[in-house]
Amino acid sequence: MASHSPTLLSMANKMVLPLFFAFSVLASFSHALVQDFCVADLKSPDTPAGFPCKKVSLVTEKDFVYSGLGVAGNTSNLIKAAVTPAFTAQFPGVNGLGISLARLDLAVGGVIPFHTHPAASEVLLVVEGTICAGFVSSANTVYFKTLNKGDIMVFPQGLLHFQINSGKGGALGFVSFSSANPGLQILDFALFGNELPTDIVAKTTFLDPATIKKLKGVLGGSG
Amino acid sequence: MASHSPTLLSMANKMVLPLFFAFSVLASFSHALVQDFCVADLKSPDTPAGFPCKKVSLVTEKDFVYSGLGVAGNTSNLIKAAVTPAFTAQFPGVNGLGISLARLDLAVGGVIPFHTHPAASEVLLVVEGTICAGFVSSANTVYFKTLNKGDIMVFPQGLLHFQINSGKGGALGFVSFSSANPGLQILDFALFGNELPTDIVAKTTFLDPATIKKLKGVLGGSG
Amino acid sequence: MASHSPTLLSMANKMVLPLFFAFSVLASFSHALVQDFCVADLKSPDTPAGFPCKKVSLVTEKDFVYSGLGVAGNTSNLIKAAVTPAFTAQFPGVNGLGISLARLDLAVGGVIPFHTHPAASEVLLVVEGTICAGFVSSANTVYFKTLNKGDIMVFPQGLLHFQINSGKGGALGFVSFSSANPGLQILDFALFGNELPTDIVAKTTFLDPATIKKLKGVLGGSG
Amino acid sequence: MASHSPTLLSMANKMVLPLFFAFSVLASFSHALVQDFCVADLKSPDTPAGFPCKKVSLVTEKDFVYSGLGVAGNTSNLIKAAVTPAFTAQFPGVNGLGISLARLDLAVGGVIPFHTHPAASEVLLVVEGTICAGFVSSANTVYFKTLNKGDIMVFPQGLLHFQINSGKGGALGFVSFSSANPGLQILDFALFGNELPTDIVAKTTFLDPATIKKLKGVLGGSG
Amino acid sequence: MASHSPTLLSMANKMVLPLFFAFSVLASFSHALVQDFCVADLKSPDTPAGFPCKKVSLVTEKDFVYSGLGVAGNTSNLIKAAVTPAFTAQFPGVNGLGISLARLDLAVGGVIPFHTHPAASEVLLVVEGTICAGFVSSANTVYFKTLNKGDIMVFPQGLLHFQINSGKGGALGFVSFSSANPGLQILDFALFGNELPTDIVAKTTFLDPATIKKLKGVLGGSG
Amino acid sequence: MASHSPTLLSMANKMVLPLFFAFSVLASFSHALVQDFCVADLKSPDTPAGFPCKKVSLVTEKDFVYSGLGVAGNTSNLIKAAVTPAFTAQFPGVNGLGISLARLDLAVGGVIPFHTHPAASEVLLVVEGTICAGFVSSANTVYFKTLNKGDIMVFPQGLLHFQINSGKGGALGFVSFSSANPGLQILDFALFGNELPTDIVAKTTFLDPATIKKLKGVLGGSG
Repeated sequence: MASHSPTLLSMANKMVLPLFFAFSVLASFSHALVQDFCVADLKSPDTPAGFPCKKVSLVTEKDFVYSGLGVAGNTSNLIKAAVTPAFTAQFPGVNGLGISLARLDLAVGGVIPFHTHPAASEVLLVVEGTICAGFVSSANTVYFKTLNKGDIMVFPQGLLHFQINSGKGGALGFVSFSSANPGLQILDFALFGNELPTDIVAKTTFLDPATIKKLKGVLGGSG
Repeated sequence: MASHSPTLLSMANKMVLPLFFAFSVLASFSHALVQDFCVADLKSPDTPAGFPCKKVSLVTEKDFVYSGLGVAGNTSNLIKAAVTPAFTAQFPGVNGLGISLARLDLAVGGVIPFHTHPAASEVLLVVEGTICAGFVSSANTVYFKTLNKGDIMVFPQGLLHFQINSGKGGALGFVSFSSANPGLQILDFALFGNELPTDIVAKTTFLDPATIKKLKGVLGGSG
Repeated sequence: MASHSPTLLSMANKMVLPLFFAFSVLASFSHALVQDFCVADLKSPDTPAGFPCKKVSLVTEKDFVYSGLGVAGNTSNLIKAAVTPAFTAQFPGVNGLGISLARLDLAVGGVIPFHTHPAASEVLLVVEGTICAGFVSSANTVYFKTLNKGDIMVFPQGLLHFQINSGKGGALGFVSFSSANPGLQILDFALFGNELPTDIVAKTTFLDPATIKKLKGVLGGSG
Repeated sequence: MASHSPTLLSMANKMVLPLFFAFSVLASFSHALVQDFCVADLKSPDTPAGFPCKKVSLVTEKDFVYSGLGVAGNTSNLIKAAVTPAFTAQFPGVNGLGISLARLDLAVGGVIPFHTHPAASEVLLVVEGTICAGFVSSANTVYFKTLNKGDIMVFPQGLLHFQINSGKGGALGFVSFSSANPGLQILDFALFGNELPTDIVAKTTFLDPATIKKLKGVLGGSG
Repeated sequence: MASHSPTLLSMANKMVLPLFFAFSVLASFSHALVQDFCVADLKSPDTPAGFPCKKVSLVTEKDFVYSGLGVAGNTSNLIKAAVTPAFTAQFPGVNGLGISLARLDLAVGGVIPFHTHPAASEVLLVVEGTICAGFVSSANTVYFKTLNKGDIMVFPQGLLHFQINSGKGGALGFVSFSSANPGLQILDFALFGNELPTDIVAKTTFLDPATIKKLKGVLGGSG
Repeated sequence: MASHSPTLLSMANKMVLPLFFAFSVLASFSHALVQDFCVADLKSPDTPAGFPCKKVSLVTEKDFVYSGLGVAGNTSNLIKAAVTPAFTAQFPGVNGLGISLARLDLAVGGVIPFHTHPAASEVLLVVEGTICAGFVSSANTVYFKTLNKGDIMVFPQGLLHFQINSGKGGALGFVSFSSANPGLQILDFALFGNELPTDIVAKTTFLDPATIKKLKGVLGGSG
């Protein structure tokens, strides 16, 4: 069989340089414009498919690594929780790859209130503590469950969902998204954190104007 | 030139049948399993890409036409509005084609309350009357405008939006979606129309339990 | 339960500002580069996924509304019909969202001749009058039907289709597409409205050269 | 370094079986339901994403190979040409993979008349002879060129295009598609090879009824 | 304003049941065939887009939660490592949602050898210990870096990559994928763990037959 | 019937110019920004969906034709083979269209060694000679077969595959890809043709350091 399949090494002993150049020719077209990734050039305008790509010659291993999720978010606030994203804007290496992550810190009593991600499904991984999480379907059915360390839960794209620290200590979770730019619409902010007139909010939520005005005051809204 | 491009008709005078069969061979592979559409067989289980296809031999022009949007919805209700969908479930011809429609009837004072479509962008066309419509972005910015007859407005995928009859008479609109199965999550139903415990709703919306319980009673929720 | 779920409002009475800032931190990452839409910057070069996005800070509600479909097209022409598009080029708000609209005006006897949309499926909604519409499948089967006010019909992507005013008065329709840039290839223009040599047209359509040359003369073609 | 990276082989001398089982565990989840391909089970109903998959345990190398393109098509017909497809229906191994092929045989004077593929872009490779090929864009611009052996030409999705043997001998080409089910709509068949009434064809093509009726007779149409 | 926007609650005091039924009508179309998710029915044949959906009426919150990643994998093997997947086959709730997870356990000296995921990009999150991870691009450039607790690294779709425990203690990581069925091709198994003849492996890898035969013996291959 | 469907030609005799302008209006929106293709402007930065488009006014038929595959690759090298690509970088007309081609020349004894295309499925067409080709699945099953002239074989996305000239003369093949930018990762180059430290290669491939260092020397790697 050796005569039919002379190995590269046996051949190479005789003719190293010719092989090297031969292979270079074979593979040379990989070096030019072809790319397997598209690290975001955040200074250029976005497109519907993501940001234009940084030049490959400027890309280093640092573009594919992000350390921002290693730092606990500040939960010294009323919701006793923090979300730290690693989306394209923070982690340009995921641009165009259909994936991103975020860190959830929940102090005792902490809550990530009802929210949606318009452009992605999400999987929550509980790394510490106990989290009660759930979502509501288009059929208005609610699916919720208490998750322990190591449990994962999936939240289908675009549906309202929440996470509550239901344990006695702090909780830590990481969420993965099926998009590099999943979006985040926090319900209370969407309703009460902008200038949408109270009259319209009332008509479209069935809450009474007094409640709306109070929440607008708290959440920075006006009108 | 005639000698280079004898026309089909001149040739056909001499040899009609041979041509017919020749063409039949050329095109015969189109007749078997190839299909340009996939009318939903709603009795089969759904898949992530839509329902399995009805056999082509059973498909007629009726599968591609739907008359249900020609009938005004019943607006004799408290929101004085009705939504009539033509999604895959009602109109199997759109299965797999990335498009669907719905009709909006708004009586005087009618409102389509805040809702999202988890899987589609939407364009509203005002056919009669005046509609105030708007949506909220992930950045909590609200974009809303009063639309007159003939105006169209786009609501990007997954974002909270609403439509209000802001005129003196009835209003009629048609909405188009970028999916055959856009989904519909009406905010008040998602929050108050199911068995999600009041305690959890309170924690995740910042509304007080008394308000929640009242709305649950009205909207058919429990817990 | 109140002790477990103090409401936002009861808490807010004591500490409004801290809450406001806490929430701001939670949501701050939504304000930067993340976007749920991509209003086309038509002055920049197109990409395979659509035009680059206008800066979010410059986007207003006007970018999501278009009034051009409210005006009847001019049907004082031989086909007694007009198509008014609201594609990305006219309505930059739909860029990247996989949806667009157009208006069809058909005077008495008006016809939208055979055409295709290379990149989209279409749904026609009849708003006024009676329209006979149909399409031909890859298997050469024709599906056509007379549509009345309120009827909708779907035309699967890329297939030849037509619309004819088959009523006694004018007809008005709106068509929705599953792409922001559906394309439009009108058969007669494709065959006779350009410089494709008559000889080639004859060979590839089986029409005789005299007919082709006449139609070229009428439709602005040469060769 | 050797102490830090004992090679598999040095270790394997001591403990072959344990390694084997250890690796088996590591990779065991690959053996069950995961699949990298989906050979079509043509007896099951199609779906919008393609046919359901044949059981992996029944798949062999034969499912990924097709010999049907090795046989010349019969060009003894009036168009002196033949198209031999290798789409999902003929070659189930491409199901779901977004690619397929076809063979074009063109005898002297042979023509593939104007046609579209509703669901795919196409690249033509000329293997023998000389082919004049072209397409028409949505802007009615025609792009056509004479291709020699080894030349390739791309026809963007959904646009009308043609191929003509413009040489003195036979021509052979192979076309690749960006879909396993590209569809094929041959213009003359779509217009004249079915039961679409002559009156409608006339209105939507601007051809005169006499011409239409003649072509219908030739191409197997009625009405 | 109160007269223009009577709140739901004030109205509800008078007419609870009518409202309930009115809303039911509005939302009723959500209850039928529409679904926002597609929990895999693993007993049915797969399709190119994923498994057919379990009936919605049989879906519970348990379908969206998976506890299998909470258990450490068995690293008592030669590579001192284990991969525990939560793909569609293990976690049917992710079917069709474009996302999945896996757990990586690396004992001291543990290694996940070179492998690819044919259908997904991956993000690694280091939860414990220190991991040296890297990938090679189409241009043969290698990007690798030592990651500490909390660091994340992205591996673009289809590229060869590896993970090595480079710390003094055990390491734990979780990987997220941009597909519910990412696939996994472990290089050594692909080359040496099957019946591909030694002669062919030699020709296509440039390794010598003796080395190949030894590795085949170890990894369960033959030929 | 003639009175109901006056033909274009009969009408045109009376009023040529009005028709011409009328049609121009109908079709005018096709001429502006709408495009059916996106010829790559290779000087602009790439995006995740491909390169920005060359201005339509500068596009000619030459942009859709490529002659580079008509020239045999140089097989005077140790693998006795050559790959000549027609990807976006060489053939800008395929940008964004999901398809590309390449030419394979295999002299007697020639081999295209194990490689993957991270972003595309591939179909091989044998035009001359005999080629033994195969791929390995995620389940480590190998599928390989000897192909003769006219045979085609599909290699699903991202999987390791190879091609060997198994005949007595030269062999010629053409491969089609389901992407305009399929990528190419040649296994030996990925492992031995870069600066990845020998220690890491040994740990992640189970090859011994001496073999690795020799191959690195041959293939241009270091470390």
